[in-house]
Amino acid sequence: MEVDAVNMINVLGKQARVAAKAMRMANTSAKNRALTLAAAVMRREMKEILAANALDMKAADENGLDAAMKDRLMLNGDRVEAMAEGLEQIAALPDPVGAVDNLNYRPSGIQIGHMRVPLGVIGIIYESRPNVTADAAGLCLKSGNAVILRGGSEAIHSNRAIAACLRRALVDSGLSQDAIQLIDSTDRALVGALLKSEQYVDVIIPRGGKSLIERVSAESRVPVIKHLDGICHVYVDRAAKAEMAVKIAVNAKTHRYGVCNAMETLLIHRDVAAETVQALVQAMLEKGVEVRGCAQTRECCAGLDVKIATEEDWATEYLAPILSVRIVDSLDAAVDHIATYSSDHTETIVTEDYEAGSRFLREVDSSSVMWNASTRFADGFEYGLGAEIGISTDRLHVRGPVGLEGLTTQKWIVYGHGEVRS
Amino acid sequence: MEVDAVNMINVLGKQARVAAKAMRMANTSAKNRALTLAAAVMRREMKEILAANALDMKAADENGLDAAMKDRLMLNGDRVEAMAEGLEQIAALPDPVGAVDNLNYRPSGIQIGHMRVPLGVIGIIYESRPNVTADAAGLCLKSGNAVILRGGSEAIHSNRAIAACLRRALVDSGLSQDAIQLIDSTDRALVGALLKSEQYVDVIIPRGGKSLIERVSAESRVPVIKHLDGICHVYVDRAAKAEMAVKIAVNAKTHRYGVCNAMETLLIHRDVAAETVQALVQAMLEKGVEVRGCAQTRECCAGLDVKIATEEDWATEYLAPILSVRIVDSLDAAVDHIATYSSDHTETIVTEDYEAGSRFLREVDSSSVMWNASTRFADGFEYGLGAEIGISTDRLHVRGPVGLEGLTTQKWIVYGHGEVRS
Repeated sequence: MEVDAVNMINVLGKQARVAAKAMRMANTSAKNRALTLAAAVMRREMKEILAANALDMKAADENGLDAAMKDRLMLNGDRVEAMAEGLEQIAALPDPVGAVDNLNYRPSGIQIGHMRVPLGVIGIIYESRPNVTADAAGLCLKSGNAVILRGGSEAIHSNRAIAACLRRALVDSGLSQDAIQLIDSTDRALVGALLKSEQYVDVIIPRGGKSLIERVSAESRVPVIKHLDGICHVYVDRAAKAEMAVKIAVNAKTHRYGVCNAMETLLIHRDVAAETVQALVQAMLEKGVEVRGCAQTRECCAGLDVKIATEEDWATEYLAPILSVRIVDSLDAAVDHIATYSSDHTETIVTEDYEAGSRFLREVDSSSVMWNASTRFADGFEYGLGAEIGISTDRLHVRGPVGLEGLTTQKWIVYGHGEVRS
Repeated sequence: MEVDAVNMINVLGKQARVAAKAMRMANTSAKNRALTLAAAVMRREMKEILAANALDMKAADENGLDAAMKDRLMLNGDRVEAMAEGLEQIAALPDPVGAVDNLNYRPSGIQIGHMRVPLGVIGIIYESRPNVTADAAGLCLKSGNAVILRGGSEAIHSNRAIAACLRRALVDSGLSQDAIQLIDSTDRALVGALLKSEQYVDVIIPRGGKSLIERVSAESRVPVIKHLDGICHVYVDRAAKAEMAVKIAVNAKTHRYGVCNAMETLLIHRDVAAETVQALVQAMLEKGVEVRGCAQTRECCAGLDVKIATEEDWATEYLAPILSVRIVDSLDAAVDHIATYSSDHTETIVTEDYEAGSRFLREVDSSSVMWNASTRFADGFEYGLGAEIGISTDRLHVRGPVGLEGLTTQKWIVYGHGEVRS
């Protein structure tokens, strides 16, 4: 690792540690003021932000970035306004810090409870979308943490302009600007140094494609909250209402294609396949979705354009208008298929049967398990978290949509009256 | 890494994954039956367990283990009975698995809640004490996890005998014996292989001395719940009752010396030092505790045997009848001292002052923060967890005493009625 990179991260890390100590104690109104001010500064500096983004877009053209990447990178007035509104929404959320729960007396006479506290210093490593700079920093600020942001090199000008707005708002609210720091360099060695800085950073949250997540997971000495694939399933049970099954499956697949909570594989119980699979496949084809089916599916869909699904299809996150379809013999077979191929993100069962639904909720071991609802609901806003910094596919600390609470931890507090242990 | 070690861990890991899937769904009565039966089998096999322990004790003599290590290793009838009772106590605890909380309707019409589920496969790496085999396995069993145990080589015969009892009880209760597996070899390469087996193991919990914890933290690719030092503080505030301060400080230091929640440093506000420090130091000396004080402490204690505390003392976990004492200028100075030298385990303030106590609870960032109570209360039993597998000094997932809940995670469950996202 390059010495300069380590030195630079150590400087940022030390500043973040000091800022985190102050942020931990910052009161709710100061944090809300900073968020509201940041929104105002972003609106005021709209021109500068768009000018910075234009530099990134120019470089994107020169570097031949594809249309999807350029769309993610591009800012306009509406998108800056949406970022500002996002910060105001975070200001309106309840402050999780300092909340005490489960305060109870013990036989010894002490009263014991749990107090929610910030994690400390959070490192966020992300790609393309400049709005992550505002969203992530806003969530870290509200939850009382300091944050070190490392955006993609393709968005460096945009990120710099947005971070400057946020830092100005911190200062104008009487908080330390070091609570939000941007790694203002595209040197890749800095990511390596950040991942090794366990002395200064309490958790790393990567947001981006598979290769980024894998690099971070492999190299990090700091605990990671990560978000891997979303290979999500809809299982149409024997006791499903056909109309509801079509409605949920179509929404889960076609509402948006490039998102992690979209369905990638549709499982159908063989007892209802004959009547339902045609309607389901027909609805997908009408939406322009390519359908890849198992042998039985193709048999049931004679006359419809169903391609052959291979073993690889079951394990693929398409993020595209492609769907794999499999007919299964039983609820157990559906649960087994999901256990084998799912990325443990989100699965749903469509059924009117109490036992089947209850068993599915209990037996499927994914971060979100649903009954008669679209997988697209797996989202921080839809779950009532107010906002999300990502969707964790880890098992420890936080699973599924990560909101303000996922950016905090708890400590035990004890109220005594002179008690000692005997 | 040796190929044989990796192969052996892969075999255990695959078996554990299969067993974990079954354990996840095991009902409460089957798990309780296995725990109660395990206690019965241990009592029945008492002779065999003690004979196995005698082999370990003989090897300990031959290898020149010190008296403290031999005491930790030694089993007798009472200690085996205590292990059996511990398993029965775990059987009596409520089952955390499947519990649903915060089930609420959202504006979309879906109902969203959290269901508690096991972590999966837990690896426990520990030293000397054979009772960890029963305690840790019992907690993992009740929380619906599979466990791979790796005890110290000095206790291999004892651990083997205890694990055999537990596995027999699993089988006799209709559960898989692979839910509790012991690495039946003293080859150190197996620890390395276990730490790299992220495919089969969800979390590693090391229990033992500093060097073990450090090795595990440095090498593990699997998430770790670790327990580092306990450098705990008692702060006697300006508004402390002198009598209560002496009672709490003496209990925190002298109730047991070799435990992580014992006080190592006593901080005293300068306004009460003149009247209180003499009484505090006198009480410690009477208990045979060596006192090392700052210059001011030594001034206040003229005539008493107070040695000079060095910078190193503030950062030392003595685990022995030694105490460092420092007089501080203010509550802020006490909080700063703790922030600098504490291991973030447990700290307590003694005060009758509302503002000082409230500030201490809020500002001190340790896993347990107390007001007018002995640090010795930082313990799973005292907190009402029923039992503990250790005390986490990590920030993520679980902090402080780790009971059944710390061995579980949560998934989101959604009850819908055909809702789709618009």
